[in-house]
Amino acid sequence: MEKLLQHINSPLDLRKLSMESLPQLAHELRDFIIDIVSTKEGHLGASLGVVELTIALHYVFNTPNDKLIWDVGHQAYGHKILTGRKEIFDTNRQLGGISGFPKRSESEYDNFGTGHSSTAISAILGMAISSKLKGEDSKQHIAVVGDASIASGMAFEGLNHLGVTDANVLIILNDNAIGIDPSVGALKKYLTNVKSGNAKDENLFECLNLDYSGPIDGHDLPLLVKELQRIKKIEGPRLLHIITTKGKGLKKAEEDQVVYHAPGKFNRHTGERIKKNSEPLPPKYQDVFGHTLVELARENEEIVGITPAMPTGSSLKFMMEEIPDRAFDVGIAEQHAVTLAAGMATQGLVPFCNIYSTFLQRAYDQVIHDVALQKLPVIFCLDRAGLVGHDGPTHHGVFDLAYLRCIPNLTIFSPMDETELRDIMYTAQFHKNGPLAIRYPRGRGITFEWRKEFSRIKIGSARCLKKGSSIAILTLGHVGNMVTQILNRLNQPESIGHYDMRFAKPLDIQMLNKVFEKYEYIVTIEDGCEMGGFGSAVLEFANKQNHPNPIKIFGVPDRFIEHGTVEETHALAGIDIESILLYLKSTLAQCE
Amino acid sequence: MEKLLQHINSPLDLRKLSMESLPQLAHELRDFIIDIVSTKEGHLGASLGVVELTIALHYVFNTPNDKLIWDVGHQAYGHKILTGRKEIFDTNRQLGGISGFPKRSESEYDNFGTGHSSTAISAILGMAISSKLKGEDSKQHIAVVGDASIASGMAFEGLNHLGVTDANVLIILNDNAIGIDPSVGALKKYLTNVKSGNAKDENLFECLNLDYSGPIDGHDLPLLVKELQRIKKIEGPRLLHIITTKGKGLKKAEEDQVVYHAPGKFNRHTGERIKKNSEPLPPKYQDVFGHTLVELARENEEIVGITPAMPTGSSLKFMMEEIPDRAFDVGIAEQHAVTLAAGMATQGLVPFCNIYSTFLQRAYDQVIHDVALQKLPVIFCLDRAGLVGHDGPTHHGVFDLAYLRCIPNLTIFSPMDETELRDIMYTAQFHKNGPLAIRYPRGRGITFEWRKEFSRIKIGSARCLKKGSSIAILTLGHVGNMVTQILNRLNQPESIGHYDMRFAKPLDIQMLNKVFEKYEYIVTIEDGCEMGGFGSAVLEFANKQNHPNPIKIFGVPDRFIEHGTVEETHALAGIDIESILLYLKSTLAQCE
Repeated sequence: MEKLLQHINSPLDLRKLSMESLPQLAHELRDFIIDIVSTKEGHLGASLGVVELTIALHYVFNTPNDKLIWDVGHQAYGHKILTGRKEIFDTNRQLGGISGFPKRSESEYDNFGTGHSSTAISAILGMAISSKLKGEDSKQHIAVVGDASIASGMAFEGLNHLGVTDANVLIILNDNAIGIDPSVGALKKYLTNVKSGNAKDENLFECLNLDYSGPIDGHDLPLLVKELQRIKKIEGPRLLHIITTKGKGLKKAEEDQVVYHAPGKFNRHTGERIKKNSEPLPPKYQDVFGHTLVELARENEEIVGITPAMPTGSSLKFMMEEIPDRAFDVGIAEQHAVTLAAGMATQGLVPFCNIYSTFLQRAYDQVIHDVALQKLPVIFCLDRAGLVGHDGPTHHGVFDLAYLRCIPNLTIFSPMDETELRDIMYTAQFHKNGPLAIRYPRGRGITFEWRKEFSRIKIGSARCLKKGSSIAILTLGHVGNMVTQILNRLNQPESIGHYDMRFAKPLDIQMLNKVFEKYEYIVTIEDGCEMGGFGSAVLEFANKQNHPNPIKIFGVPDRFIEHGTVEETHALAGIDIESILLYLKSTLAQCE
Repeated sequence: MEKLLQHINSPLDLRKLSMESLPQLAHELRDFIIDIVSTKEGHLGASLGVVELTIALHYVFNTPNDKLIWDVGHQAYGHKILTGRKEIFDTNRQLGGISGFPKRSESEYDNFGTGHSSTAISAILGMAISSKLKGEDSKQHIAVVGDASIASGMAFEGLNHLGVTDANVLIILNDNAIGIDPSVGALKKYLTNVKSGNAKDENLFECLNLDYSGPIDGHDLPLLVKELQRIKKIEGPRLLHIITTKGKGLKKAEEDQVVYHAPGKFNRHTGERIKKNSEPLPPKYQDVFGHTLVELARENEEIVGITPAMPTGSSLKFMMEEIPDRAFDVGIAEQHAVTLAAGMATQGLVPFCNIYSTFLQRAYDQVIHDVALQKLPVIFCLDRAGLVGHDGPTHHGVFDLAYLRCIPNLTIFSPMDETELRDIMYTAQFHKNGPLAIRYPRGRGITFEWRKEFSRIKIGSARCLKKGSSIAILTLGHVGNMVTQILNRLNQPESIGHYDMRFAKPLDIQMLNKVFEKYEYIVTIEDGCEMGGFGSAVLEFANKQNHPNPIKIFGVPDRFIEHGTVEETHALAGIDIESILLYLKSTLAQCE
């Protein structure tokens, strides 16, 4: 059979197809996604789940004039393929290639960049109000929002406003009962009741003054098209509830939806995942966190664990399995997660609140107002701190040092390796004098035998790893491991001292004073933004103490860094071995 | 009649009273609040509205063993008076006196510090889960949340979690249909339907799996007590919906609820407000914003205004009155407000999004992820930036420079006077290359004739206000006005140069290079946190450019600053005239 997809270069081509041929196109689109993602990696399950919806939306609505936003955006692969990016889809998430998320600069069909959840309702309402003001009354505005995402506070704020407007907005509630991990919460329970016919007369969304319809089968393309055509004619705020299956069409992906959210390489026919190699590797930091927390919680029954919707990604799942009554997945609710932890801390519990660095931005006020101001001993574990690689600028965790450092009463630590992560977690449970934030990167550590006995770390103490004579390198966190390689490539490694500063706050003033007195040149390295970060803290210290030493700061410069591998993004930011070597060599030449 | 209140020094005394005498106590408590607030100022309406509720809660529940949280907290005056702070209540909000909000360090009855809205559900759930884990199954946990506050996203996140727990939590929904300004949104509309009996069978809160009861009259003390006694015996998550009148018991306050939220001094019998004096004063910055926006919006029909629940406080009300279809109060929904603005900006509108500095902390992620990353030209007007005085540490807007400065693509401006505020607002509408944040303080400016013609400000340009020889003072924003007074008190004012830097980002590098070359000493002054703020930006500049000048930074030190007048809080922070003079005199002595 002639392939339909090969002739689709834009939704205009799609709209020429007959209704009857759409299921065939869905089949081809699904295959295309599986083909590429099986070899190039990326998010899989979410996009497979909305193949029919994607086709139906572009078939029925007049995109890009009608506005369409994909909330979170990792389900937008089909959308990208149908809107002119089929030929370059194999560059997805790679350096210089297309983004794994909708991106305004990439296509006129990407009306709003997404990545973090629950933004689409607010953004589409802003567009719809604009259309009203411009008199474009027939223009349609559609936001596709998952059931996990719509349960987040920000989405509720959007719905609460939407319900009292006459804006031409259609919310598609894509209910697959899962985000990255299975959905949780009262709304999830309510939606389950609705789907099983057990809800009462009035509907929650109708309470919010929205024109609700559904639930309907989101994989029944003719039904979807018919329903969208009907709804298109209605004015004002509407919500269509559709039921889909994440991973639809690939048996393995349907069966194990968590793993197949982003499965890595896999056999495109059987769905079997392809193991990268069988060599032993150091553990992922997230697993060191997850297993260590269980070890600590076994001994200390005050310890509780909290994750906003990332049991798998954070590895809190280990504690959720072993000690379920003290480990909480609160859904996509970072604000609630932080203040819940604050409430627990007032009663003497020891909450480990694990939030990706980039997502803690969602709970910034709660960290200040509910935790730090009250000096509550909440332990923040910030996973994915620093540049995260393929997920790109929406997900880089590069601002945390700057936005946390200004908060009084807060201690900030970054481990250089697994042992330091374990030891600071052990230490944290005894730190009652305010909150403690622990930031560690995406990816793996460096230690094979990492399950060592715990030892306590003195708050605010740095470590000297190597003494030198003229240049002191001060590193914060995992980037410190670059220094060994750097020293190996220098002719005068004896000139260089290396200090693992560990605490971005409080700084080890005593150690720093010695370092600034002994060495002529100071270099700081951090996997975070240059402005206001760790390097700036060192500048502030040096200024207060009147140290005249030249200070060179390696950090993420003042721009958003694109996607690529972690190494590539480090190079883009100039916090890579080559960039640092270049500086050291030229400075050593001056020392001579 | 013997006064009841004089014998109440704790809820233990209250619980000795007969049910029949409680209305008399309510009468006395209301009088007491009116007596003090009429002369000492403070929040009035909210506390008057919950007099009966306050008595009933402490009468029925075993506080402080049972936990009680007042969301937002400005309605907690009655609570403070009944829980041992009657004698010091006249120190409310004054330097060294009690806080205007619940505060953990102040009383064992203040179980959680509040100030920002919508935190209580999360905090009380954290406490209730702790009680469960400790086996304290009979302990009660109560959060009082207003209808404006419960519509905020964070509250929804809390309810969504609460509904799937068996935690012993009672939420009191205090529905008075107003926050500081009248409540808005779909939930408000729904609650209005419920109160008028027009809602259908199922209840929105029941959809979220909560045991809902009400609505009942929150001023009917016997009914309240009876209902609380009934509900107390039920286990698990419950919500009681009560209807109250803000300002209850003072006619003027009931009639003009917005003004009597915090009316200043008033006649305790008639309720008439007492005008401070009739001397003409410079305008409040908020009014300069409000009127200027109307002027600009008349000429530029792309301009829209957005406020999250602060039409009066921000003075966006002027635009809401004159151009209602382009001015939006979205309720307590900072996250939504920012992304709504982002959506509008994608369509060519020019959104002025006005959010108090302290509340923008709630939308930090949206500023980064939805606005700055996409370079969308949203104009943020940050009112109440800097130390705000009597509202204290929950409301000081001191972190914005640090948390915004690290965000790429963002321009940050702070006006020194009304003219600069107007001119930057005028300029902002033409700034299409990313977002622009304008931060200005609480209170009044310095100019009587402030409605001047607009002129455009070059982005990133500073102003030299006075040339000098040895010390350059670089100021950001309104604090620059201190310098004139400082110069008047110095013997060698000719030595001092003064530069109004205006932009915290981008810095005026050209001007700064000249200043650092010409002057020996550099002083920076800002009404914001020292760590990572404007002074740090100057340090980063000097370090990159290898300027060796000593730099003295005046900013808010690394601790939370208590409440007092704005002047007192400035002195506490060491950013007052005396502190700066002291430094200048000693430095000038060194120059000689």
